[in-house]
Amino acid sequence: MSDDKINSNQLTAKKEELSEWYSQVLFLADILDDRYDVKGMAVWKPYGYKAMMNLKAIWDKLFQEAGIEECYFPLIVPLEYCEQNESWWKGFQTEGYKVIAGSEQKVQGVIRPTGEPAMYPMYAKWIRSKSDLPIRFYETVNSYRYETKHTRPLIRTREITVWHEIHTAHATKEDAEKEFQLHMKLWDQMWNDMALPILKVKKPQWECFPGAVGAVEYYSTTQTGRVMENGSVNNLGQAYAKKFNIKFKDENEQDQYVWQLCTGNGARLLGGAFLVHGDDKGLIMPPKIAPIKAVIVPIIFKGKEEIVTKKSEELFKKLKKYHEIKLDDRDKTPGEKYYEWEIKGVPVRIEIGPKDIEKDQVVLVRRDTGKKTFVKNSEVKEELSKLLEEIQENLLQKATNMLNEQLTYTESLEEIKTNLNNNKISVVHWCNNEKCYDEISKVEEGIEGFGTDLKEDEEGKCVVCGKITKTKLYVSKTY
Amino acid sequence: MSDDKINSNQLTAKKEELSEWYSQVLFLADILDDRYDVKGMAVWKPYGYKAMMNLKAIWDKLFQEAGIEECYFPLIVPLEYCEQNESWWKGFQTEGYKVIAGSEQKVQGVIRPTGEPAMYPMYAKWIRSKSDLPIRFYETVNSYRYETKHTRPLIRTREITVWHEIHTAHATKEDAEKEFQLHMKLWDQMWNDMALPILKVKKPQWECFPGAVGAVEYYSTTQTGRVMENGSVNNLGQAYAKKFNIKFKDENEQDQYVWQLCTGNGARLLGGAFLVHGDDKGLIMPPKIAPIKAVIVPIIFKGKEEIVTKKSEELFKKLKKYHEIKLDDRDKTPGEKYYEWEIKGVPVRIEIGPKDIEKDQVVLVRRDTGKKTFVKNSEVKEELSKLLEEIQENLLQKATNMLNEQLTYTESLEEIKTNLNNNKISVVHWCNNEKCYDEISKVEEGIEGFGTDLKEDEEGKCVVCGKITKTKLYVSKTY
Repeated sequence: MSDDKINSNQLTAKKEELSEWYSQVLFLADILDDRYDVKGMAVWKPYGYKAMMNLKAIWDKLFQEAGIEECYFPLIVPLEYCEQNESWWKGFQTEGYKVIAGSEQKVQGVIRPTGEPAMYPMYAKWIRSKSDLPIRFYETVNSYRYETKHTRPLIRTREITVWHEIHTAHATKEDAEKEFQLHMKLWDQMWNDMALPILKVKKPQWECFPGAVGAVEYYSTTQTGRVMENGSVNNLGQAYAKKFNIKFKDENEQDQYVWQLCTGNGARLLGGAFLVHGDDKGLIMPPKIAPIKAVIVPIIFKGKEEIVTKKSEELFKKLKKYHEIKLDDRDKTPGEKYYEWEIKGVPVRIEIGPKDIEKDQVVLVRRDTGKKTFVKNSEVKEELSKLLEEIQENLLQKATNMLNEQLTYTESLEEIKTNLNNNKISVVHWCNNEKCYDEISKVEEGIEGFGTDLKEDEEGKCVVCGKITKTKLYVSKTY
Repeated sequence: MSDDKINSNQLTAKKEELSEWYSQVLFLADILDDRYDVKGMAVWKPYGYKAMMNLKAIWDKLFQEAGIEECYFPLIVPLEYCEQNESWWKGFQTEGYKVIAGSEQKVQGVIRPTGEPAMYPMYAKWIRSKSDLPIRFYETVNSYRYETKHTRPLIRTREITVWHEIHTAHATKEDAEKEFQLHMKLWDQMWNDMALPILKVKKPQWECFPGAVGAVEYYSTTQTGRVMENGSVNNLGQAYAKKFNIKFKDENEQDQYVWQLCTGNGARLLGGAFLVHGDDKGLIMPPKIAPIKAVIVPIIFKGKEEIVTKKSEELFKKLKKYHEIKLDDRDKTPGEKYYEWEIKGVPVRIEIGPKDIEKDQVVLVRRDTGKKTFVKNSEVKEELSKLLEEIQENLLQKATNMLNEQLTYTESLEEIKTNLNNNKISVVHWCNNEKCYDEISKVEEGIEGFGTDLKEDEEGKCVVCGKITKTKLYVSKTY
């Protein structure tokens, strides 16, 4: 972010210049300030943090109502905990930040890159008998990985802020399977609240979370046909239980290992939504997480200052009981104010001018469509609630249409490239063989099959070897 | 915590064995598990974390309604930020955890011991003109200090969890002073919600937060007449602004440094409340932060299982709409259940047995006094709300009485020792001279004047040199 751009406070990038737009808009909308002098770590400004906290409130409610309880495990993980699962440690060792302290500057441990090695040694202490199961805990924490790839705010960072991870342990495989299905349902609700359609895919075994036996991963997409991993539900089977020695005595006093799963997502949900819903004017906040649902802009004319101010304040007092509302009474022109609130993506703007007051009305302006409605004063509260719902639905519908248009069934490797140039995501039949998978990756630097469709309902020929298969693989590049 | 105690699940320590009681009760009540293998860092279990999150919800509401906004600054602070204020750095350098990463294991920075050096370089970027002021932000984060003293959960830890710190910047000294008074008022409300009376003291200049120009500090006390620092409001004057170069152009285009203050507190609020309100049976949760306000225990008699279960479930469904309620339908005896919920300090127990059902009543039992009330079914909701308020008030009243009895005006150094042996806190006149202050500390290892009374309304003789003074100093040992 150059200082020129900062000083101008103007959004100069068009939405189609996606990466530049994203970087400008996060800064100008007061989501983050990435001028903090540690690479891959940014400051959350209050407006952005409020959106994130609204999102956290959604998952707190959703998961707690499902009986999953919030807890907290320390930031620093002893090396001996990390080493208990060598697959996990292999996956995260080089990215792990080490911590040194004391007069001898001794290594105290690793800053948590993921929750498992801090949590599971304690699970092993807590679980003795079947009556101690299930354990269904989550924590919302920041995690740390020394990313060597290009970092991108909210999406690929060294400080993964506000990460929501759930770790459960069960007595039987069936219980774990039931839990897996429940989590899929809960995540569906989260996606819905973000007005985001999502690709749910199965990862090939060799691409799973280190040490997991299977996974469903979530991908959101961009208008450029790129995809980003956006959460996952990982089936850990008994693999971690064996490493961390988490077992219980069954009815016959025999030791049994528990069945586990872990699942999580965080600020990427926000990043994904910002990328999809925005436009040339800036962000469009999905109403369910918008920090400000509507902003009141008084239209001041000379001689009418008092009445407009008075009416605006009255409306503000009335509406703020029901919604998060802002009254913008700063000494700026309405045009300047519109510009700022549009960048910030506030779903609805409420204009009040002298003429509106004469007609006992206000003007509601939708951020997503720009459409104006004139609404009687007595009906503002209800109309605003209705409008917020409509905006939420419209955002989801538009994004769903975009995704549906992007998915392109493809029968040759060459087409995959063409598709990507046309901002499309390829769907190909694939024989489940690792060799053919690798061939697809060779089509072009960065292209990969990021997962297979959960349904297997149509036969076709593997795009590489021609073998008949029911498995369909999604192919694109990572954003 | 020995394994014997864990396996017995029995609270064996009396409240008067304060430290042993505290350690046992935090574990048995499922607040924390300190068997995590990093010294000074413990796992928050769901019950304890819920109490902490209830407390966080109180401060979020309180401070946000006062217009102070939540934000977040990164965990890792670049060394060059730390070095900008050498008084701060001198105060925290040896306690700071350093972070290394990458193939060369290069130092990346320090894990935040306090918020200032991460925040203020950004404040310097954000503030240009008077219209950028005031900045009134807070963050709720974990902070890290490599404590070399004896650690104690929630009170003196290496991972200071759920720390709420507020940092404001103002154009004038008067604005900062007004903000200072506002914060004092907000903290009063917090203390009230914790049912804790508090000693507010002024620190002698040489005891202030590194780099601060003045401070009001809060101290909670224990039944043993010991005190613990429990939050502070620090007046930073322009001292930090000068170090971090935080300035704005005034009306005459002249550079002016901002006026700042910072204030904070966190899990110590909980620790202080647990120490004061508990008894031989375990914790007593102040109702305002209690994770469970009341627990329903069905009293099952043979042949009456069905009706008791049915009535208990009905009551549970009815009450949970208004309060956080637990129905304990586990296969244990009522006695075993009482014992567990008493350790956890649930404010009210609701018993329902066959005889109560006949009389269309339930039994409400107060955790703080043990008093039983028989309440008509139709009145349970109102009576429970009333009872929770009464318990909250009673806890505050009892704690206030205790504190008042502890404060003992004292005219000789020898008496300070006697007071402490009698679990009293000494109040002495003091001439404000550092030499006399040091003399007081020499009375006995650990004794110190931890601050002076905010009011200066009574003359007396300095307990050391006899000089006439209006300043009164509180003297005790730190818990």
